[in-house]
Amino acid sequence: MLSPSEIAALDRDDELAGFRDRFALPEGVIYLDGNSLGALPKATAARVAAIVETEWGTDLIRSWNKHAWVEMPRRIGDKIARLIGAAPGEVAVADSTSVNLFKLLAAALPHRPGRRVILSERDNFPTDLYIAQGVAALFGGGVELRTVVLPDEIEAAIDGDTAVVMLTHVNYRNGRVHDMARITARAHEVGAMMLWDLAHSAGALPVDLGGCDADLAIGCGYKYLNGGPGAPAFLYVAKRLQDRIASPITGWFGHAAPFAFDPGYRPADGIARFLAGTPPVLSLGALEVGIDLMLEADIVAIRRKSQRLCTLFQDLVERDCARHGLTLVSPRDADRRGSQVCFAHPDGYAIMQALIARGVIGDFRAPDILRFGFAPLYLRYADIAEAVAILRDILETRAWDRPEYHIRAAVT
Amino acid sequence: MLSPSEIAALDRDDELAGFRDRFALPEGVIYLDGNSLGALPKATAARVAAIVETEWGTDLIRSWNKHAWVEMPRRIGDKIARLIGAAPGEVAVADSTSVNLFKLLAAALPHRPGRRVILSERDNFPTDLYIAQGVAALFGGGVELRTVVLPDEIEAAIDGDTAVVMLTHVNYRNGRVHDMARITARAHEVGAMMLWDLAHSAGALPVDLGGCDADLAIGCGYKYLNGGPGAPAFLYVAKRLQDRIASPITGWFGHAAPFAFDPGYRPADGIARFLAGTPPVLSLGALEVGIDLMLEADIVAIRRKSQRLCTLFQDLVERDCARHGLTLVSPRDADRRGSQVCFAHPDGYAIMQALIARGVIGDFRAPDILRFGFAPLYLRYADIAEAVAILRDILETRAWDRPEYHIRAAVT
Repeated sequence: MLSPSEIAALDRDDELAGFRDRFALPEGVIYLDGNSLGALPKATAARVAAIVETEWGTDLIRSWNKHAWVEMPRRIGDKIARLIGAAPGEVAVADSTSVNLFKLLAAALPHRPGRRVILSERDNFPTDLYIAQGVAALFGGGVELRTVVLPDEIEAAIDGDTAVVMLTHVNYRNGRVHDMARITARAHEVGAMMLWDLAHSAGALPVDLGGCDADLAIGCGYKYLNGGPGAPAFLYVAKRLQDRIASPITGWFGHAAPFAFDPGYRPADGIARFLAGTPPVLSLGALEVGIDLMLEADIVAIRRKSQRLCTLFQDLVERDCARHGLTLVSPRDADRRGSQVCFAHPDGYAIMQALIARGVIGDFRAPDILRFGFAPLYLRYADIAEAVAILRDILETRAWDRPEYHIRAAVT
Repeated sequence: MLSPSEIAALDRDDELAGFRDRFALPEGVIYLDGNSLGALPKATAARVAAIVETEWGTDLIRSWNKHAWVEMPRRIGDKIARLIGAAPGEVAVADSTSVNLFKLLAAALPHRPGRRVILSERDNFPTDLYIAQGVAALFGGGVELRTVVLPDEIEAAIDGDTAVVMLTHVNYRNGRVHDMARITARAHEVGAMMLWDLAHSAGALPVDLGGCDADLAIGCGYKYLNGGPGAPAFLYVAKRLQDRIASPITGWFGHAAPFAFDPGYRPADGIARFLAGTPPVLSLGALEVGIDLMLEADIVAIRRKSQRLCTLFQDLVERDCARHGLTLVSPRDADRRGSQVCFAHPDGYAIMQALIARGVIGDFRAPDILRFGFAPLYLRYADIAEAVAILRDILETRAWDRPEYHIRAAVT
C-alpha cells in the first residue's frame, strides 16, 4: 500500500496532470461525481459569453450562417465520434439521451419486423428502461421490454425474438463494463440490432463502436464530456443503416431541405435525419468546449489513469475503512470496471451527506450505494488519499449519524 | 400619413419605450426579425455567467437542490402560463417545439380512439406538418394528416373523423391570426381535441388558452420570449386532461419519483409527466431572463404597440414603395394580424439580402416573401420609418440586383 510520498510521486509522474489547471474547480472540494455532472472547463465561460454577447446579441439571426450555428449538431458530433470509434458523419448532437433513445428504438423496431423484444437488463439506467417501456406501449402488437436480472445472463437471452439489444456499456450504479464486441457479435448472430448507451463511457474509456460493428448508440454530454448541466446528448447510427431507418420524430432539422419550407417531409441523407428541432446553440457551445478539451488528451492515457485512481481508492477504502460495513459492489478487476468505484452501506445516504459536508462530493444511488466517480483530467492521486482519510474519519466518529443527514433532498 | 415629427411624438408617448434599453441591440441595425430570433436582454449574459461559473462551476452537482435546477421546467412554465392564459401547473418548459408537438400528438390520438385524422392547414409551419406526418406513420392504422388549402376552410373540415385539430395561432409566413375561441369550440362540438402552436403568439399578443378551453398547446422560447437561439420550448396540457393522457417519451424526468430509480415507469402527476430527459439548465436560465422581462410589461400594451408598429410599416411601404411590385400578403386588418407584416416580391430573396446589408434585418420565407417582425419591447416608431426609407432606396436604385444577393445561404 502506498505511503504519502509514493502518492506524491504518482502525481509528479502523471502525464495528464496538466489538465487539472484547465478546470475551474472550487476550493475545498474533492469532486468524485464527474460521472454525474462533469466539472467546468475554464474556457467555457468565455465561449458561452461570446455566443451570448457576440453571436446572439450582435449578429443575431445572421449567426445561423455567419457562425455556422446550423452545423453545430454535426460538427460536434464528428468530434465525439473520435472518442467512441465512430466515423465522421455517424454521430450528431441533439436533444436529451432519453429523446435520442426513443428515436433510435422507434427507428430500429420496424427494421426487424416480426421481432417483438427489446432486450435489456433490470439494472440498466432507469430512463433507458422507461423509454423502452414507452416505445413498447406505443408500438403495441406484443412489443415488449424484456430484462435479465444478472448482466451475465444477457447473451443467453438474445434469441430470434430479439429485435434490439439495448444495454448501457458501463453500468451507472456499479461501474461494471459489458463486453461490447462479444455482445454485439452475439446480437448480430441471431439477427438482432445492437444499441449501446455510452453515458458512462464516452470520455472515460476507449470505445470502438466501428470495430465492434455496433448499430446504434446514444450518450450523454454532461458527464465525462464536461458539457454542463443538462447538456445536449448525442446519437450514433452506423453509416450502413442511416438511409435504411428513419426517426419517428420528423422535425424540420431532419428534413432534406429544412429551409425550402416544403409541406411534405423528406428525411435528410445521413445522420442529419435524426435531428428534430432547432439546435440549442448556447448549450451546444458549452458542450463543444468540454469535448475540445477532452480531445487534447489521449483516451488511452485517460483510461490508464482512471484505472489507477479507481484501484487506489478501492484499495485504500478496503484497508482503512474495512470495519465499518462497506461492501464493494463495483468489479474488483479494473478491466471490467468503468471509471467509478461503488460501495454499498445500509446508511449510504447519510454517509454521503456527511462526506459532502466535508467537501468530498460523491453520489448516492438508491437504495444503498455510495458511488465515487473518477475523472482523470482533473483528479490527483492525492485527492484520492485525502477523500479516503475523510471517509475513514466520518465512519470512525459516526459523524454521519446526525438527523439532518438522513433528510432526503429533492434530487439525490 | 405621418411626418417625422409625428413619428417622434409616437416614440415620446410610447408607454413601453423604457424597455428598449433593457436589450443589447447592435449599433446600426434595425432588427425586424424578433419573430425568428428575439434580441438579447442585457441581463441574460450575467445570469448565464452566474449559472456557468457559480451554479455549475462552484456548486456543481449540489445545484440540483441548492439552486433548484430540478424545478426550472415547471417554474419557468408557470411564468409562461401567465402570458398565454394558462393556470399554474399547466405549462412546462422542455425539449424543442418539434419534440413537444410529437409528444402531445402522440398523447392525444389514443384519447380519441377510432378517429384517424389530424387536421391542419397546408400553410402551417412545416415542422408541424412533418411531425404530424411522422406521428401518423408511426401510428399506422389509417391515421393521417389532412390539410386544408385555405385557412378559412378549417372549420368546415372539422368532422367526426377528426381526432385533433392542429393549428398555428399566428401563421409564420403571413401573420394571419386564427380565431382561437371559435375554432376550439368547433373542434369540441364534434368531439375533436384542439392543439395550438403559439410560436408566433406567446409574448406578442394576449392568448387565453383557458378562456378558450383549449386542450393542448406548444410554443417556442426563442422568438418573442427572447430566450436565445434554440431556447427550450414549452408545452401546455389543460389540467382536466393531465392525468388522462400520457407522453409517449417516458423519460425519467416525467417519472413520479425520478430519483427512486425504480425499474418500472410510472408517470408523474400533472404537467411533469410530459418532461423526458434532464433539463437543459444553461438554456433554461437564459430563457427565464427573457420571460421575466416580458412579464414586466403589460401584454395588452405590447399588443397595442405591436399593432401600431405593424400598421405604420404597412402604410409607409404602401405609400413609398408602391411602384416596385410588392404585394401585401399579411392581413390588412390589425386585429387579424400577428406582430408581423409581409410582402411578396419575385426578387424577395435578393431584396432581403440588400436590406440586411444596409442594417435592416428581416426574414425571407420561401418562395417569395419578405417577412418583417415587430417586437414592441425594443422597436421604436422611428425605426419603422427608417427601415421603410432604406427599403425604398434599395428598390428605387435596384441596389438588390447584384449577383451576391442572389446566392442562397445555408439558412435563409
